[in-house]
Amino acid sequence: MSGLRRIRLDLAYRGTSYCGWQRQDGCPTVQGEIEAALLCIVGEPLAIRGSSRTDTGVHALRQVAAFDTSARIPPERFSFALNANLPQDIRVICSSEVPPDFDPVGDCIRKRYRYLIDDGPVLSPFLTGAVWDYRFGTLDADTMHEAAQTLVGEHDFASFQSAGSPRQSTVRRIYDISVRRRALPFGLPDADGTTPQGIALEVEGNGFLYKMVRTMVGTLTAVGNGRRCKEWIAQVIAARDRCAAGVTAPPEGLYLDNMTFGLRLQ
Amino acid sequence: MSGLRRIRLDLAYRGTSYCGWQRQDGCPTVQGEIEAALLCIVGEPLAIRGSSRTDTGVHALRQVAAFDTSARIPPERFSFALNANLPQDIRVICSSEVPPDFDPVGDCIRKRYRYLIDDGPVLSPFLTGAVWDYRFGTLDADTMHEAAQTLVGEHDFASFQSAGSPRQSTVRRIYDISVRRRALPFGLPDADGTTPQGIALEVEGNGFLYKMVRTMVGTLTAVGNGRRCKEWIAQVIAARDRCAAGVTAPPEGLYLDNMTFGLRLQ
Repeated sequence: MSGLRRIRLDLAYRGTSYCGWQRQDGCPTVQGEIEAALLCIVGEPLAIRGSSRTDTGVHALRQVAAFDTSARIPPERFSFALNANLPQDIRVICSSEVPPDFDPVGDCIRKRYRYLIDDGPVLSPFLTGAVWDYRFGTLDADTMHEAAQTLVGEHDFASFQSAGSPRQSTVRRIYDISVRRRALPFGLPDADGTTPQGIALEVEGNGFLYKMVRTMVGTLTAVGNGRRCKEWIAQVIAARDRCAAGVTAPPEGLYLDNMTFGLRLQ
Repeated sequence: MSGLRRIRLDLAYRGTSYCGWQRQDGCPTVQGEIEAALLCIVGEPLAIRGSSRTDTGVHALRQVAAFDTSARIPPERFSFALNANLPQDIRVICSSEVPPDFDPVGDCIRKRYRYLIDDGPVLSPFLTGAVWDYRFGTLDADTMHEAAQTLVGEHDFASFQSAGSPRQSTVRRIYDISVRRRALPFGLPDADGTTPQGIALEVEGNGFLYKMVRTMVGTLTAVGNGRRCKEWIAQVIAARDRCAAGVTAPPEGLYLDNMTFGLRLQ
């Protein structure tokens, strides 16, 4: 066991072709692809542990994973070796040695997600699978932003948790949330030079329940399209019942954006 | 022939899966896909004419095409009908009736192209096929921009024309060209928060020779990576010989961006 080192991988991936992060038999997953590439490189099966188990179709601009190895490869070289063995929709941004007690799950004290919505008349051909192709009218981003501020702070987010992966506590803290209208990357040129087609939501919290961001987004669109008022969000939180919230937004607009590691203060 | 109307289509497409714009037997092309979709809608074969014959793998943020039809479909409805019948990587932004003498080729007095280069260490998984994945070192965008100004004005661009589609005159006018370092759409987060990974070139002219933009880009990268000096560009122009210029940049970084229609002043 001497010489066993813990290696951290900072990753980005386009989730479109994968059944999410977590390894599954008979189904391509991001974890499965990385473990297969590691097997090619070090010649022995290694299990990696990722900060977030992203769902089918969800993307990552930054995901962090770690594994232990006795292979005598310089830590920073794993990124090159892995990128040479991985499909192009999974990239290792960098690799480094970390202390042997680094835990990508337990040490993650903040996570940041981004969600992109295209509410214009025609979806850019460059954005298929990369945004929510929202075809139910134009959204009012300012009203969504105001309504979203109700979510900031520590709340019981039971109303925003989908069945399937219940956590012991449904209390989480949201540090920051913003909803802004803005031109999307590779968005189409605007015919009359007026409002850009696109909504970007960014949210940071100390943790998120199963499908919590997507339920927040779906719920906020009900405010943004005028079916619900801003004050409804407080009622949804208070209900502690998934049926009180809005739809679950589709996975293709969701990006794991960043995470912060440190000591979790109790 | 009474009731024959000319319809203009404003299009965007991701060129990755197509053998360029122009219809070819046995090969998927953008023109071919649109004509096939029109056949479904109006029930008769129609030929469309596009402003630019983009090459294999080249994209369009705006391309303009036109066709004549006697079909009694309101002009603005063609966009909806076509989008319902086209693959998602080809989109009609809008459709409209134009005067019967509107000519997407002859009336186009200015064209604008954009070219994206990723010169960072790792290509974003969202940018495969959408940028030049440049792996020959970091480019100096400011020097490229200065060198590019030599191209502005009316010149004989014979050095920048690839064989295969010779034009009668190789004189063209470049109105404007800029090269800037900037974060690319869906670019990876920068590890140390310093220089963004990416170069965007934009160029507008009264017309472009075969592979002229890509040869300009390849030539400018020889300045940007330090192998050539800024003054070399004037020598390349003066040579009127393709062998004097640099490499042809790959098609995947090139976007037809916009065009202007009007009277061509002789």
